[in-house]
Amino acid sequence: MRKVEVCFSPELIHLYELEGKIVVVVDIFRATSTMVAALAHGITEIKTFAELEECLAISDQGYLIAGERDGLTAPGFEMGNSPVAYLNGDFAGRKLAMTTTNGTQAIHKSAGAFEILIGAFPNFAATTRYIQSLERDVLIHCAGWKGRFNLEDSLYAGALVKALEKSHSPEEDGALAMLALFEKEGHDLKGFLSQASHAKRLQNHHIENDIDFCLTLDLYNLVVKMDARGFLVKA
Amino acid sequence: MRKVEVCFSPELIHLYELEGKIVVVVDIFRATSTMVAALAHGITEIKTFAELEECLAISDQGYLIAGERDGLTAPGFEMGNSPVAYLNGDFAGRKLAMTTTNGTQAIHKSAGAFEILIGAFPNFAATTRYIQSLERDVLIHCAGWKGRFNLEDSLYAGALVKALEKSHSPEEDGALAMLALFEKEGHDLKGFLSQASHAKRLQNHHIENDIDFCLTLDLYNLVVKMDARGFLVKA
Repeated sequence: MRKVEVCFSPELIHLYELEGKIVVVVDIFRATSTMVAALAHGITEIKTFAELEECLAISDQGYLIAGERDGLTAPGFEMGNSPVAYLNGDFAGRKLAMTTTNGTQAIHKSAGAFEILIGAFPNFAATTRYIQSLERDVLIHCAGWKGRFNLEDSLYAGALVKALEKSHSPEEDGALAMLALFEKEGHDLKGFLSQASHAKRLQNHHIENDIDFCLTLDLYNLVVKMDARGFLVKA
Repeated sequence: MRKVEVCFSPELIHLYELEGKIVVVVDIFRATSTMVAALAHGITEIKTFAELEECLAISDQGYLIAGERDGLTAPGFEMGNSPVAYLNGDFAGRKLAMTTTNGTQAIHKSAGAFEILIGAFPNFAATTRYIQSLERDVLIHCAGWKGRFNLEDSLYAGALVKALEKSHSPEEDGALAMLALFEKEGHDLKGFLSQASHAKRLQNHHIENDIDFCLTLDLYNLVVKMDARGFLVKA
């Protein structure tokens, strides 16, 4: 059996060994869900940035630019962090540059892993199958909210620990806790997560459609990984 | 309703507001359990130290000195981190100086709170009642293991969130997650926690008696708090 661990915050990722592992970065509301939606609907590749300024600067190289801070589209950006903006294929064939409050930071802090995958519910089963094909230890890296634990990323972690049960052993405490949490609450993701602080934050912004999309399982048979250039692409 | 939050690691405590709150520091295996046992069995006060050297230096001022690193008694110390060492009252009337791998660090990082309490299962109900008498927001500060999430501290957090349900609302994601976890696994603390990484670590050191003590509920009608001098005493 391989092992699976869960890290609840980018501020704790330095405590984990990344080398040789598959790191699955998760920011359910909404960065990683948006990345999956974008690539599923024709975006050719995604470059992520930690800072707004760096991301803005690349717009003259043909990139569609997406910038989000505190749940809102950042000033000067074409796109915010909404997955539904990509669903009708308006941006097919474009390259995307993204920076978000939590998710893109978590991706950058995952550098050094054997493979970096982008985790979301809409491509959950495809990601699970891909992980099982690689036969590597897994570290689920929850983006959280400004360094703090959040419910939606950790519940995804619990779902993935559960789905990997036959190939990956949850020997570490974070994985054990989230497995138990998912076993208790996973039958009603939307109900349980409606309590989550970030879902409430998003509801205040009137983006219920985004929440629905982010919690829908297996819309796409698609795996998103970081390639050797540091771009997110279809695996 | 007051609020209750859970912080899973001393490395995340800087993200939380402490001012005006009751901070309950938890290091179930074993620092906070040992503090409760010591004060219940005649130790008059406890001074905590982050560093081994500082703690050793105070032994010539009449302190019994306890030092633990990585689960073992540190070289040169009279006591390690075992709660059962205090149960027969051999050290009644003594002052205790302690330093441990995780717990004493978490206590020091709780400075600035309105009140700092020491949480453990053997004084669980007494601590719950005391908190409810104060009518303040609560932050449960889990010591974890070297900065990482651990199962025993977070399950205590879930138990306390549950016990405070009528007075304190778990609006924050960590509290919501641990409440659900405790509701699922709290009926069999010892069974669930036998999987925990630190319980396994302790079992390797042959201290099953310590584990049993640390998971026993309500042996003492005792509340442990930090006084104005920075000493841990009976409230």
